Amino acid sequence: MPKLPLPPEADQLLRQANPAVIATIRKDGSPHTAVTWYAWDGSRVLTNMDETRVRLQHMRRNPRISLTVLDAQSWYRQLTVFGRVVDIHDDPDFVDADALSIRYTRKPFGDRTRHRVSAEIELDGWYGWEAAAPWPPRA
Amino acid sequence: MPKLPLPPEADQLLRQANPAVIATIRKDGSPHTAVTWYAWDGSRVLTNMDETRVRLQHMRRNPRISLTVLDAQSWYRQLTVFGRVVDIHDDPDFVDADALSIRYTRKPFGDRTRHRVSAEIELDGWYGWEAAAPWPPRA
Repeated sequence: MPKLPLPPEADQLLRQANPAVIATIRKDGSPHTAVTWYAWDGSRVLTNMDETRVRLQHMRRNPRISLTVLDAQSWYRQLTVFGRVVDIHDDPDFVDADALSIRYTRKPFGDRTRHRVSAEIELDGWYGWEAAAPWPPRA
Repeated sequence: MPKLPLPPEADQLLRQANPAVIATIRKDGSPHTAVTWYAWDGSRVLTNMDETRVRLQHMRRNPRISLTVLDAQSWYRQLTVFGRVVDIHDDPDFVDADALSIRYTRKPFGDRTRHRVSAEIELDGWYGWEAAAPWPPRA
């Protein structure tokens, strides 16, 4: 697996508001996946979810996650980051929910009646792939 | 979690050649995710990969997988299926590789020099989601 930090092209792909799928570990040790919004500030991945989401229970039990980001321009280019949830906190004022919603839709988060929770992730590794070759291309 | 079999709308989404991300379990119990082609015949999910892919090692060790399919028309509609790899077999004549490649690109699989392996998956569960609500809508 390539070493951190992410090379510039991979960092850029992660900064864009791309579709992504996050995997967590269920109680029985099997994987769970879900589409998610995320943000990347260069040090942590931010995700935010309804407090009832099962993946939040998974993260509280086992912090290991894997996140695959598909380039919205061509999903044959992908970046996957592995990491650990290092902080879980309530988001009562929708600060993170709004930041993510504005990032993806340019509008504040819609449903203000439900409780949101944020999870911040630190990276342990990554790989990138485009069609049948590692991406970004090795120099 | 909704019960199997998949309702008709979900079965249809899975039959289409949509982008998908598959999660497997690494040796240390943490999740691994990767973009994948897949096919669904109504009874098993077919995937096919280069023999050197790490997820093939994961599947041989732990058959549990989770596959999230993003609707190519709008990735806010997603279907996730949970299951077990029940058969792993070599694909020396590129039968499965060609079937998947034709399904996604209308062309036979390109690289005939590398060894391919197929993994067939039986389903144990599923859920669907569109924006902030379960999908397909409950009757």
